[in-house]
Amino acid sequence: MIKMDSKNLLYEGKAKSVFQGENPDEVIIDFRDDMTAGDGAIKENMGQKGYINSVICAKIFETLESEGVETQLIELCKPCVMKAKKLDMIPIEVIVRNIATGSIIRKFPFEDKAPFNPPLIQMDFKDDEFHDPMLNDAISIALGIASKEDLDTLRELALKVNEVMNKMFKDIGIILVDFKIEFGKDNDGNIILGDEISPDSCRLWDAETLDMLDKELFRQGKDDEVIDDDEVIDAYEEVFNRLLTEEDKEKWGI
Amino acid sequence: MIKMDSKNLLYEGKAKSVFQGENPDEVIIDFRDDMTAGDGAIKENMGQKGYINSVICAKIFETLESEGVETQLIELCKPCVMKAKKLDMIPIEVIVRNIATGSIIRKFPFEDKAPFNPPLIQMDFKDDEFHDPMLNDAISIALGIASKEDLDTLRELALKVNEVMNKMFKDIGIILVDFKIEFGKDNDGNIILGDEISPDSCRLWDAETLDMLDKELFRQGKDDEVIDDDEVIDAYEEVFNRLLTEEDKEKWGI
Repeated sequence: MIKMDSKNLLYEGKAKSVFQGENPDEVIIDFRDDMTAGDGAIKENMGQKGYINSVICAKIFETLESEGVETQLIELCKPCVMKAKKLDMIPIEVIVRNIATGSIIRKFPFEDKAPFNPPLIQMDFKDDEFHDPMLNDAISIALGIASKEDLDTLRELALKVNEVMNKMFKDIGIILVDFKIEFGKDNDGNIILGDEISPDSCRLWDAETLDMLDKELFRQGKDDEVIDDDEVIDAYEEVFNRLLTEEDKEKWGI
Repeated sequence: MIKMDSKNLLYEGKAKSVFQGENPDEVIIDFRDDMTAGDGAIKENMGQKGYINSVICAKIFETLESEGVETQLIELCKPCVMKAKKLDMIPIEVIVRNIATGSIIRKFPFEDKAPFNPPLIQMDFKDDEFHDPMLNDAISIALGIASKEDLDTLRELALKVNEVMNKMFKDIGIILVDFKIEFGKDNDGNIILGDEISPDSCRLWDAETLDMLDKELFRQGKDDEVIDDDEVIDAYEEVFNRLLTEEDKEKWGI
């Protein structure tokens, strides 16, 4: 039924491959085990990551749908393989920050771990050649990648996603520090949440210990070689285990 | 009458020194001959530059005032020395671009020399330690350096300044490619154009030859050593001579 071969490959990203679905308006997304850091300079195969991320993403997207945020998800066919709406992706990474850490404190004088209230929204231009530079509205419009109305919609949706996810993670003892999301337009021009939400695209801290439960572990491991790949995948599994209910597991045959 | 000694020095910038004026609400600005490039790493004394820039700035500020844009200028006491309103400066460099060149085409895929319509506004955080990173509205607000209303006012004033200056320069055969301006607040919280406008802060091209008539010559001279300092100051003088009327020269005793 689902053909994931090179003939149907539409796009190969750093961690996912997108194939044409049976229906022209649908795609099949293959969550691979590849993990990259440093603008793609470092690449590794991280066993189980595709499996874990696809299920976490499906769980988050389903929850967002139930709260009125339309997502690309049609169904998780099986772990790693998601059937989704075909979207014309907007080349903007929308970053929502609840707590100051990472690049924002290296680039600007924000105090480490200071909360942002309201959450801070940043948009980066998704372009490997130009190394994903930060945008402002005028530049996005001049580049022709979004209108003023689109940008306002992206911000509004991003805040709604943040609100829903904050609650989801708080309920399982995890602090949602920041995350990156991407959007696309369907045939009618509606802006819909696409791509993925997973520990690859979020900073997640254990609410008790403040231990990192996300890709940052992988980045740091590559820098200092103290953190090994097992610890990274253990952290992803921890998020997976806290987030998934028995019902979810049964539904997806896990 | 005017005391420009270290006791009264309020602030020393890369090219100007600001002294307390006789009136508590006033400052005396000394336009020095110093010229810097590369984040201040290169610094030279460029004879006559302070003289030329102070007069060009006074001429532009007077023209802006006559078109309804309030500026810091009270009067040019004599070349190099400007009496001005004391402002609480907003640490934002507001950059207005009419034509794509320089950092914007290195950072984003805009075509070299392509016109921006509407003019592109960018705001950079004026902070040497952080190397003047580009801001977005949310970051400016989170840093506490401007409110949403302030940012909208900055954009509105910047476009008005651009409109007036575009005409001024067009009338003397010069293309206003882009420029940087800074604003401050007076005691009543009004946002007023401050700092300076001169060939140090604008890109100006001869409309016929497209020759550069601005500080970019100095930057390029430091890179390739083909352009010498005399050529830089000749370009500044060219702008000075085209801009100043006989009446202006008489008024300022030039």
